Amino acid sequence: MGEQDEEATPSRTLSPSAEFPPPGEEEREALRQAGRQWGAVLQGQTTPLPLDPDLGRYSGTPAPSRFARLAPVEMFRAEEPDQLVATESATVPQSRAGRVLTRARRLVLGPPLASAAVVQERMRKLVALPVLSSDLLSSVAYGPEAMLTVLVLAGTAALGLSLPIAGVLVVMMIAVGLSYRQTVTAYPHGAGSYLVASDNLGPRPALTAAAGLMVDYILTVSVSVASGIAAITSALPTLRPLTVPMGLAVIALLLAGNLRGIRAAGNLFAAPTYAFILAVVVLFGFGLAQAARRGFVPVPPPDVTATEGIGVLLVLRAFASGAVSMTGIEAVSNAVPIFRPSEWRNARTTLTWMIALLVVLFSGLTLLSHLYGVVPGPEETLLSQLADRTLPAPLYAYVQATTALVLLLAANTAFNDFPRLLYFVARDGYVPRIFLHMGDRLAFRNGIAALAVPAAVIFVAFHGVTESLIPLYAVGVFLAFTLSQTGMVIHWRRVRGAHWRRSMAINAFGAVLSGLVLIIAAVTKFHEGAWVVLVTVPLLILLFLRIRRHYDKVGAALSLRGPPRGSVQPVLPQRPAPAPPEPPAYPSDGAPAEPSRGRESDGEGQQEIEDTPQEVRHLVVVPVARLDLAALRALAYAASLGQPTFAVHISPEEEEADRFRQEWTDWGDHLRLEIIVSPYRAIIPLLAHYFEALHALRPDLAVTVIVPEVVVPHWWQRLLRSGTGRRLRVAVRQLPGVVITSVPIHVFRD
Amino acid sequence: MGEQDEEATPSRTLSPSAEFPPPGEEEREALRQAGRQWGAVLQGQTTPLPLDPDLGRYSGTPAPSRFARLAPVEMFRAEEPDQLVATESATVPQSRAGRVLTRARRLVLGPPLASAAVVQERMRKLVALPVLSSDLLSSVAYGPEAMLTVLVLAGTAALGLSLPIAGVLVVMMIAVGLSYRQTVTAYPHGAGSYLVASDNLGPRPALTAAAGLMVDYILTVSVSVASGIAAITSALPTLRPLTVPMGLAVIALLLAGNLRGIRAAGNLFAAPTYAFILAVVVLFGFGLAQAARRGFVPVPPPDVTATEGIGVLLVLRAFASGAVSMTGIEAVSNAVPIFRPSEWRNARTTLTWMIALLVVLFSGLTLLSHLYGVVPGPEETLLSQLADRTLPAPLYAYVQATTALVLLLAANTAFNDFPRLLYFVARDGYVPRIFLHMGDRLAFRNGIAALAVPAAVIFVAFHGVTESLIPLYAVGVFLAFTLSQTGMVIHWRRVRGAHWRRSMAINAFGAVLSGLVLIIAAVTKFHEGAWVVLVTVPLLILLFLRIRRHYDKVGAALSLRGPPRGSVQPVLPQRPAPAPPEPPAYPSDGAPAEPSRGRESDGEGQQEIEDTPQEVRHLVVVPVARLDLAALRALAYAASLGQPTFAVHISPEEEEADRFRQEWTDWGDHLRLEIIVSPYRAIIPLLAHYFEALHALRPDLAVTVIVPEVVVPHWWQRLLRSGTGRRLRVAVRQLPGVVITSVPIHVFRD
Repeated sequence: MGEQDEEATPSRTLSPSAEFPPPGEEEREALRQAGRQWGAVLQGQTTPLPLDPDLGRYSGTPAPSRFARLAPVEMFRAEEPDQLVATESATVPQSRAGRVLTRARRLVLGPPLASAAVVQERMRKLVALPVLSSDLLSSVAYGPEAMLTVLVLAGTAALGLSLPIAGVLVVMMIAVGLSYRQTVTAYPHGAGSYLVASDNLGPRPALTAAAGLMVDYILTVSVSVASGIAAITSALPTLRPLTVPMGLAVIALLLAGNLRGIRAAGNLFAAPTYAFILAVVVLFGFGLAQAARRGFVPVPPPDVTATEGIGVLLVLRAFASGAVSMTGIEAVSNAVPIFRPSEWRNARTTLTWMIALLVVLFSGLTLLSHLYGVVPGPEETLLSQLADRTLPAPLYAYVQATTALVLLLAANTAFNDFPRLLYFVARDGYVPRIFLHMGDRLAFRNGIAALAVPAAVIFVAFHGVTESLIPLYAVGVFLAFTLSQTGMVIHWRRVRGAHWRRSMAINAFGAVLSGLVLIIAAVTKFHEGAWVVLVTVPLLILLFLRIRRHYDKVGAALSLRGPPRGSVQPVLPQRPAPAPPEPPAYPSDGAPAEPSRGRESDGEGQQEIEDTPQEVRHLVVVPVARLDLAALRALAYAASLGQPTFAVHISPEEEEADRFRQEWTDWGDHLRLEIIVSPYRAIIPLLAHYFEALHALRPDLAVTVIVPEVVVPHWWQRLLRSGTGRRLRVAVRQLPGVVITSVPIHVFRD
Repeated sequence: MGEQDEEATPSRTLSPSAEFPPPGEEEREALRQAGRQWGAVLQGQTTPLPLDPDLGRYSGTPAPSRFARLAPVEMFRAEEPDQLVATESATVPQSRAGRVLTRARRLVLGPPLASAAVVQERMRKLVALPVLSSDLLSSVAYGPEAMLTVLVLAGTAALGLSLPIAGVLVVMMIAVGLSYRQTVTAYPHGAGSYLVASDNLGPRPALTAAAGLMVDYILTVSVSVASGIAAITSALPTLRPLTVPMGLAVIALLLAGNLRGIRAAGNLFAAPTYAFILAVVVLFGFGLAQAARRGFVPVPPPDVTATEGIGVLLVLRAFASGAVSMTGIEAVSNAVPIFRPSEWRNARTTLTWMIALLVVLFSGLTLLSHLYGVVPGPEETLLSQLADRTLPAPLYAYVQATTALVLLLAANTAFNDFPRLLYFVARDGYVPRIFLHMGDRLAFRNGIAALAVPAAVIFVAFHGVTESLIPLYAVGVFLAFTLSQTGMVIHWRRVRGAHWRRSMAINAFGAVLSGLVLIIAAVTKFHEGAWVVLVTVPLLILLFLRIRRHYDKVGAALSLRGPPRGSVQPVLPQRPAPAPPEPPAYPSDGAPAEPSRGRESDGEGQQEIEDTPQEVRHLVVVPVARLDLAALRALAYAASLGQPTFAVHISPEEEEADRFRQEWTDWGDHLRLEIIVSPYRAIIPLLAHYFEALHALRPDLAVTVIVPEVVVPHWWQRLLRSGTGRRLRVAVRQLPGVVITSVPIHVFRD
């Protein structure tokens, strides 16, 4: 088993190349066809380059760049022919603001890491266990308390129900745990709920699982931080008013730490989890010892007035609240590849151990709470109350400290998992591609930010109170659990390996139980906050589908599909550039030149720039406002391209038009000048319409508009400039066949 | 007199061509030289154009644009050869958002007006008088009240001082009035304080006057609106809580009306002023008649507890407050050209009448307040109290209504004058050039907005209370008065026409008196708010100078200065474009090609695009991320330019680099491909550094970077795109010699 099912592809791993997906076979073939056309046109002739793009032949002493200590030439190493490798210094932007920002960022986050530093760390089971289980085990710090908080609403007597509910939850834990063991063996390269649902159920269920998980990860951060802060303020009540600022500081710390890209620190992360387990075990020891001295007679809890009657609904609510203890159970199935070989076997063993620990910690704490008659309250956590009553002061402090630490660690796992999930969803095109980008620290910084911001907002909105956050929590988790395990059921039916019926039954049982919890949580906690999740998840799915549709449309439009329209390609006798000096397309007698051609293309709609060079016919237009240095440079640049070129000037009045024509004559009238009088003083829309008109006349032409742009170094100076270039670019952006060229004119030298 | 001094130039009038200043003689000569160089290069050969830029030869049935009812070709009319005239529909932007905005704007503000609609309306004196005097005369609605408000601080007894203070103010009014009569005759084409100070005192005093006037105009709007609303709320006290929203609504109305470009409506504007004068005269009639029945014995004012003693300072403060009645006295000197000929004579007569009316209204109201023992209070204006006590209800309503109306009109004059002032200051380069632009309604919309926004802010900040605004008001006005009249003194000394000594004496007297008021206002009201103005004016002047310095530097950098560096111009044997296929500049044996040339230019620093065509040598670089349709179009466009071209690809990893090179080979390897491995995954800064490196190798090359830009129609779709083109443009903006060409790829057609 395990090896039997190698459908998991290497693409389950993360790679910085994911931003550059390779072409499909069809695209590859279309590419070859397009290439043959080019070859026919170019006929082996290429324009020789005036320099070596490898930068390598340069033997003078390079002058340092004004932006860095190195000369720009030294920022690149030629390792293979026609290939350069950029050094670290080439990653610093050139603009002053950009440089300052980059420096500041690197001061906080560290220098950039090369792609080669992506290493798949392998962990021993004893290290993997604490690293992967911090989320799961830390949830016992708030899970039993959440359950008791609901029960106590029906008064002290209802607290006795905690034991049977805990019993059911333990059964749940074992069932779901067994179910996930199946996933580990079936997907030995690791697969979270999204991938499993995607593989077996199709995109929509997968997106549902993804949306549920995203909500879950965000809430994991909020809840874990809130609970961690509660552990601290239980011990140091004077800090209570600082709950919100402390929580925000913790989230900021997690954000910064993860942007730095903390990794290869498994050993470091192992300690707090073990310390926490030890703390709870010590608590059990002392607690049970004292209870034994009382003959295990429960201390009667303080009298609490009931605000609700004991009913099925209340019990179910308490059950759903307690079920949040199970969050994090899916961690192992995501992370199979980090284990040493044979991965799936070690992962499965670790998962078993995790479940066992969870069951012990959860049931132990519930039992202890019962024996000590502890009632949850807003002032002090349940764990703190128990520790306070059973342990000496130093040990009490130890329990609180490790609890806070392990909760912090749990929040940190969300910072690892959320960007990974976004990466996989982005690779499928359902969220913006920016989530594929690994920052210079090899961290998915967009995904990290996308987690920290909503988590912080939710934390503040709920004033950092764990109890208020719990009702939102369970729904997303169990949505993902249910879909993942349903996916496994389909998987077994499809694959039919050894013992597939038994495996399927286990997963079906897990799926049904998870689904039940999902329904119970959604119904009983609807008013308390679950509705937020039930509204958010469908909205997220809609958003994902919309984004995918957009990317699909763009992808289809950009994909290569055999020879472009018009099957016969005019092959020119020689290299096409410069375009052979076409006779003037408009005869001087006023008859339209090749009207059929123009009309034909016009009827076809908006024609785009062609995609083989011989089809591109050029017309270069230079808008000129004043005949100053900027304009002359733009004109010189335009004329030197060797394509048909003319200038256009917009005048608000006839008089200005005459005056400008005089200037043009003074200059020598070297290029055709077209003046447009704009009696309404519009400039930008006018130029755009004029270019559109040119395009309408001859849709086969590529109209290149050459705009001089005066570049000033400071932002406040830019405010003083009219930004004609930018506004023109925006205005003509939607026009087909119009190319904008910005010729920069630097008026101040640094 | 008057005609003797024709130094006023026609540039005193407004023109939409001001945005396009003609070149100076030196620039013209440099232009001719540059032209001769081009001529030598082109040798009469120009590339024939494939279409007619006049659009005129097009005879097919034009298809309507997708953006308008007209085909884009029909949006332009060819009236002269090589010259088109844009129709109104060509002024509508093409983007959907732009179209919607333009439509909405035009619905509110009306269709665009042609430049030819700028007409200089001529007014009869009887029309000009009310139009020009609304600001001046309306200020009696708050001037006497402001004076009494200060006096009453010293208790009821101090109110008696109002009569002597008013006497001094009347002397002031006559003196300043006489002084401005001199300005009218000396500047028959009209000149406000800024132009007079600029002509005679130099730029800094002129800017001081301009800054003072700008503050003054802004406060005129705030004070007039506040006072007008007070006239309304005095009659209808239930509206008092709505003071601020009502005031904002009025300012918004003025803004909209002026953006519409209300003009040629002199007759309409004449009515409220006359109605107001009539109202005050009626008030006098009834008031004096009733007072006569009491034998002109003053009614003792109600007892008010003194909070300050009577002292010189209090009297001076009251004097400075009363002096705000003189705001608007300079209106005629600005507006001489609107009079019928002979303009200066009619203007002078009108000014005399205005002063006379001001003196009568001001002294009459002060006297009446004394006779009726009226004490100003926050609940009801002085004018309202007087009218209430003397007039029957319908006449009372009439007084209040005309007062509110004339104050609104006064605020409106600021909307005319402020943008004019900005226009003149902008023409001199001290404020951004956008204030030269006449919008499509012939209104200076930027200037109008620049007035309305601060006026509204100040109005809200002072809760629309006139009394709080008065202390800020006087300083700016009298600053401008003083400088304008000092300028006139210099003028007479310089020009020395007939009676120049007498004229100079009159202006000197006016200047001294104005200066005294300025000092008194600045000192006595410093704490009450004058300090705001005393701080703002110098800051504005600094800002103006800073802006001018920027424009000067840019202007100097862009001005043509004889032949470019290197006196001998290499004249190519034939037309320079396409650049003669240079032999590969780097020999294959690795020795640097023409090292001296590259080094020499390198040492010279950053070389820019040259400004004659034969000097431009091209290198075209196409950054390619994927070989998709967008990339192929960009490559085709690049190759078709017929210049040396190569492609560059950035890979995050070696493997991706190899894969991409394979794709490139599949395509046919038609262009040189350079791959840059970016181990730190930076893309944009890397490309920028690479281009800089290319430039460092061969500073004589113009590096044209061709970027395909996928254009999507909706803003939310743009959010999904990485915006590489835009980011690259920003990154390379500061690099010399790098030209960016955006080849648009439209993936969705409307």
